[in-house]
Amino acid sequence: MADPRFFIKSPAISLANIVALTGAELLGDYKEIEIADVAPLDKAAAGHISFLDNIKYAGQFKESKAAACFIRKKHITHAPAGMILLVSENPYLCYAITAQAFYLDKIRTASVSPNAYIAESAKIGASCTIEANSFIGENVEIGSNCYIGAGAVIQAGSVVGDNSAIGANSTISHSIIGKNVIIHRGVHIGQDGFGFAVSPRGLVKVPQLGRVIIEDDVEIGSGTCIDRGAGPDTLIGQGTKIDNLVQIGHNVQIGKHSVVVAQVGIAGSSHIGNGVMLGGQVGVVGHVKVGDNVKVAAQSGVMGDLPAGASYGGSPAVPIKDWHRQTLALSKSVKRKETENE
Amino acid sequence: MADPRFFIKSPAISLANIVALTGAELLGDYKEIEIADVAPLDKAAAGHISFLDNIKYAGQFKESKAAACFIRKKHITHAPAGMILLVSENPYLCYAITAQAFYLDKIRTASVSPNAYIAESAKIGASCTIEANSFIGENVEIGSNCYIGAGAVIQAGSVVGDNSAIGANSTISHSIIGKNVIIHRGVHIGQDGFGFAVSPRGLVKVPQLGRVIIEDDVEIGSGTCIDRGAGPDTLIGQGTKIDNLVQIGHNVQIGKHSVVVAQVGIAGSSHIGNGVMLGGQVGVVGHVKVGDNVKVAAQSGVMGDLPAGASYGGSPAVPIKDWHRQTLALSKSVKRKETENE
Amino acid sequence: MADPRFFIKSPAISLANIVALTGAELLGDYKEIEIADVAPLDKAAAGHISFLDNIKYAGQFKESKAAACFIRKKHITHAPAGMILLVSENPYLCYAITAQAFYLDKIRTASVSPNAYIAESAKIGASCTIEANSFIGENVEIGSNCYIGAGAVIQAGSVVGDNSAIGANSTISHSIIGKNVIIHRGVHIGQDGFGFAVSPRGLVKVPQLGRVIIEDDVEIGSGTCIDRGAGPDTLIGQGTKIDNLVQIGHNVQIGKHSVVVAQVGIAGSSHIGNGVMLGGQVGVVGHVKVGDNVKVAAQSGVMGDLPAGASYGGSPAVPIKDWHRQTLALSKSVKRKETENE
Repeated sequence: MADPRFFIKSPAISLANIVALTGAELLGDYKEIEIADVAPLDKAAAGHISFLDNIKYAGQFKESKAAACFIRKKHITHAPAGMILLVSENPYLCYAITAQAFYLDKIRTASVSPNAYIAESAKIGASCTIEANSFIGENVEIGSNCYIGAGAVIQAGSVVGDNSAIGANSTISHSIIGKNVIIHRGVHIGQDGFGFAVSPRGLVKVPQLGRVIIEDDVEIGSGTCIDRGAGPDTLIGQGTKIDNLVQIGHNVQIGKHSVVVAQVGIAGSSHIGNGVMLGGQVGVVGHVKVGDNVKVAAQSGVMGDLPAGASYGGSPAVPIKDWHRQTLALSKSVKRKETENE
Repeated sequence: MADPRFFIKSPAISLANIVALTGAELLGDYKEIEIADVAPLDKAAAGHISFLDNIKYAGQFKESKAAACFIRKKHITHAPAGMILLVSENPYLCYAITAQAFYLDKIRTASVSPNAYIAESAKIGASCTIEANSFIGENVEIGSNCYIGAGAVIQAGSVVGDNSAIGANSTISHSIIGKNVIIHRGVHIGQDGFGFAVSPRGLVKVPQLGRVIIEDDVEIGSGTCIDRGAGPDTLIGQGTKIDNLVQIGHNVQIGKHSVVVAQVGIAGSSHIGNGVMLGGQVGVVGHVKVGDNVKVAAQSGVMGDLPAGASYGGSPAVPIKDWHRQTLALSKSVKRKETENE
Repeated sequence: MADPRFFIKSPAISLANIVALTGAELLGDYKEIEIADVAPLDKAAAGHISFLDNIKYAGQFKESKAAACFIRKKHITHAPAGMILLVSENPYLCYAITAQAFYLDKIRTASVSPNAYIAESAKIGASCTIEANSFIGENVEIGSNCYIGAGAVIQAGSVVGDNSAIGANSTISHSIIGKNVIIHRGVHIGQDGFGFAVSPRGLVKVPQLGRVIIEDDVEIGSGTCIDRGAGPDTLIGQGTKIDNLVQIGHNVQIGKHSVVVAQVGIAGSSHIGNGVMLGGQVGVVGHVKVGDNVKVAAQSGVMGDLPAGASYGGSPAVPIKDWHRQTLALSKSVKRKETENE
């Protein structure tokens, strides 16, 4: 069970309710059975519900003590005797939904700390949690049921939609943020982009006159930086998830439901499509287009446009098969010499 | 026009004044014409001033609705009828200067928040803006007309020159910062370098007894970390611009007017010259020298000294032509095999 | 001498005491000599103690004005006349210990600021330094002699052991932190890992129900992010040192006395052994094992398990000799063509 110092667990939930939440098909007449907690297969105890998503864990599955398990139809023959099965084409999703039902976020208290600084002109919605030492500037608009962490800074004029969270010590300016957005700690959104004109006296700052638009259901990891647009806006599309320590330059646009893994850097004015997956530490140069549903392997360098729907790797990034061939060719050439020399 | 929630626009400015600011040559007798705003070519409306820096935007230029445009002499033949032209060898610089004249930074109020913590021994210059929840430690010296953002922390003894800005939630210690410096949000300057001696009981900390010196006109992006020197100082030279999430190790010295793009890492004791350009995600190992005016392509790994005035790429970094040849050779070898196999 | 605005130097220390601290062997009867300060060879003045660790600095050694020097036995023949020698197999370690004796950390005052927010249910040990604008949540437990920097945020339930430091503007949650731990500024520990289930309506958050466990004597650099476990805990082993801007994903385990250089990224569920050295900007994919005492060169990409005790380089990482051969082969192939073309 999760450490009660950090997590509040709901009381037991019946399988009937779990079926209602997840849409999974319960095999057998076990609706009245109460489930006490969620757990992975190897940690589950009596009364817990678990999931089998990948058949390579069939061994753990057979020995699991879980009372019940989400599972794909084709895997039910692997089930140990006595385990209650809930069939779904997406066992991991069912598990996620169930885990959400069991565990609430402990930090939301729906109270505004008297130690927060809130400008008089700011508008704060109902049921917000605003922690001590946070800063909410002039004319900021915060929706209802939001969480503003300790030390978070929201500068003048920015807007935060309903049910969104701004993590501790994050800083937000020049931003319009949608609903159900999660911004983790130490995220910096809306600062100047990196724009300079060369002059005989050195580099001269070009005023950055755009904003950052973050659509609904976006999640942004700790330490990530998103610069505001130079003239156009920087845009993060609905449902996109961004990991920690990512750099997003001015005027970048990312589509909907894309995934940007940790330490990726996207240079100014590049456009990333919908459903794109950028692996960890990928770099994307400025002014390029990455098509919908593209996948880029970790550490790759995207130096030009990438057509939609394909996978790429390497620096400069090439179609993933070519990258694997390059890697293999390099490896073989060296091995051959090694053999010759020995 | 820029979103008025975030930007304050000056009233109209006459072309006479714009000429005085930029030094551009106004073609025709339009000195009395009033300009209302700046905008890129494709967004400009009547009354706006724009710029043409790159002839590949000649199409946008011909269809632009801008009233006036900064332009190079050689491009004036492309101008649409009725557009007022201001000739300069550096249209983008003229645009930057004009944009600065139109737009002021809204966050400066020249007031000190009663919710800031300021040690009694700290000295604060005239006309500073110090936001709530900031922390200014013992014997800190802040020049005049500075901005200290909400939640910024300036530890004991550090010095900040006139007209400089320390962004929200940045932390500064052991630092001497010059004039007209812009430090964005969540920047960490002056913490211990990464120095350890190996012992039988594990790694033993070597006290880091140097400082960070930041010269005038430097800009440092959000999330960047600059460690203080181990004995010598860490130094960022005048006019150098550093992007977001850059790591600068102890004893590093960077010259004047260099550009360090996002997510670069420079390991301890390396020296970077004047006018150097390090692309995004470049890594520089410790104890090397990068000569003046060197350019290093994004994601490259600098593993040794780089002579002045040339361009490099790859990991390990080699002269840029060699890197392009390596990339091409790898690509060709794979393509050939592909053809043979099909 | 270190800048007195930032460092407090102890008065002179006798060589007898320095010998007692370091275990070095003093050549000659100089026990009563008082040493005034530490300094590197080229900066040392009369009365200072220095060290010679690497014979390539023999030139500086011969011309150094240091009164005394830590040195290996085999190097004593290089010593200039009149220099007092202290023989040790680890001169740098002796120097580190001596420097620690001379310099104290100025920021510890053993006082709790009335401007800190401390929940009533929090427990604070004796002699802690807690700066203004810090935040200590419900049921947090802080040991004795800890330092909590300005703007640091420690959320409900977390535990910090004796003699540990939490830097300014860091954020901690869901964490159990040991003794003598140093967490620098702007470090984010304990936020959600990056875990999502794919659904027809987009990515669904999987609750992250683990913690972060940080053992004794760990040091964590500025801007680093460590996500809490998804179910298991994320673990940083005793004595491990982590540099700035490192990303550590959920469920990662790092062993004891390992070194992780700046901007490394370690993806979820990977296990790093004891005594491992990961160079700057290294990436490690998820679910792999890196054996004890492995060394990985800067910018490498670890894409699979790495057996213990060896060195690796490249992306994908291969044994270091193979990587050097690959680099050389690529370089040669290009040079050859260049010659042919000229």
